[in-house]
Amino acid sequence: MSKLPKITHHEMRTAENSAAYLLPKLLAMKQSNPHLTVLDVGAGSGTISASFAKAIPEGRVTATDKNKDILLRAAAVAEEAGVTNIDFQEADVFKLPFASESFDVVHCHQVLCHLKLPVDALREMLRVTKPGGIVAAREGDYDSECIWPNTPGLVKFHMFAAGCINKLAGGSTSAGRQLLSWALQAGAERTQITATFGTWCYNTAEDKQGWAEGIVNTIRNTDGALRKGGLATGMTTEDDLEEMAKAWEEWSKNDDATLGMLHGEVIIQK
Amino acid sequence: MSKLPKITHHEMRTAENSAAYLLPKLLAMKQSNPHLTVLDVGAGSGTISASFAKAIPEGRVTATDKNKDILLRAAAVAEEAGVTNIDFQEADVFKLPFASESFDVVHCHQVLCHLKLPVDALREMLRVTKPGGIVAAREGDYDSECIWPNTPGLVKFHMFAAGCINKLAGGSTSAGRQLLSWALQAGAERTQITATFGTWCYNTAEDKQGWAEGIVNTIRNTDGALRKGGLATGMTTEDDLEEMAKAWEEWSKNDDATLGMLHGEVIIQK
Repeated sequence: MSKLPKITHHEMRTAENSAAYLLPKLLAMKQSNPHLTVLDVGAGSGTISASFAKAIPEGRVTATDKNKDILLRAAAVAEEAGVTNIDFQEADVFKLPFASESFDVVHCHQVLCHLKLPVDALREMLRVTKPGGIVAAREGDYDSECIWPNTPGLVKFHMFAAGCINKLAGGSTSAGRQLLSWALQAGAERTQITATFGTWCYNTAEDKQGWAEGIVNTIRNTDGALRKGGLATGMTTEDDLEEMAKAWEEWSKNDDATLGMLHGEVIIQK
Repeated sequence: MSKLPKITHHEMRTAENSAAYLLPKLLAMKQSNPHLTVLDVGAGSGTISASFAKAIPEGRVTATDKNKDILLRAAAVAEEAGVTNIDFQEADVFKLPFASESFDVVHCHQVLCHLKLPVDALREMLRVTKPGGIVAAREGDYDSECIWPNTPGLVKFHMFAAGCINKLAGGSTSAGRQLLSWALQAGAERTQITATFGTWCYNTAEDKQGWAEGIVNTIRNTDGALRKGGLATGMTTEDDLEEMAKAWEEWSKNDDATLGMLHGEVIIQK
């Protein structure tokens, strides 16, 4: 277990900083039903899943991911957090291994932005949601990313990463602004949807270091998809990658450094 | 008074939706001193100033603007809101007509982004702030604006408006991300500053209509600076302006329409 890499910048995520739009609704639902069931789709290393489990001690969280290795890390995160009301299951978001109308809350965070067919995924999430339950999704809008100071190496990284999301992975760098549209296309009525924008904001010493370290590790990881895919497709070079890594290291040391990004958020009342 | 134009999209602003980052701090300061004095710089039509006045009924708000006509509208707004603990005063943000260390809270919203010398303005705001008081600023980052669906007329408007901010007015479309840097340049220590990002988000029927109506009125106003300046400098044409106005009208009718923008926010503890 200890050999699994810790994806620092992913593990900064908690329900408090990444699902703040959902928490009041979740807690209100818990009032009328303490035994809430929550499905967290594409849970990754599961830091958000674990904080959901903490928020509903009498409820139960099911954390899924298509990558079963990352679920081992998620199990370790849950154990470290001392939560036991959580299960882990490998699952394809397009074909969730659950009966229709199974969960009170079906959640995803930064999942649809990586998919070619986000509407199909949302439709599947709606399928496994109980009537009276909710689907909640939060997706970054990478095109809206604000970085200061925006040095050439950081501009280069943004363009490269955007290319990877749009071309390599077949996702979308404007997912945040499209999320409401996707929810409508998945069959929700406008009156069922509450749409908001939230933000990421990193500028404290700890946040800057965590964020930059996570990205630098990703850039320099010779086994990672970003580096391997970028080099194999000719989208970047080893020299460019090193310039980007150094630019992030320098950024994190600047007093005036800040980073923000808009996130689209929807709650669909089924 | 009734002949003054109502700038719809400006008057949607309240302390609750535009100074949420500041309200908890303001209320905490009120606990120890109910007689807080707040200076609102560049208050415009004063909807935020009026909500500050409501939040500190035993305190006093001074709302200033360089445009004395808009302060007449601000006085009407305060009267409509039923607040009387507020004064209005014409003032230049670079030369505030107040003694040093006069106010507990000195605030501005969407002011520095329009200035050629935002650091000088912040320095002047710090000057009139009491030791132990705060300067609070919130500035849009127009480059981060997210619009969906992003039709050609809206893209054209964004480019035109960005040109007006950067070139005509000498302001900055990346003010939000630079705000922390400006605060440091104005003399604040990093440890005195709390920096966050907030958002704008318009997608309900009422918000979309209010926002679009405000922009359409601005575009079509033959006496307005945007239209007159844009035409005089050749930055736009009458046909383009009409295309932009129609694009906003159409946008506001779409179920999937949404708009968001990052706002940099700083609280400087003096």
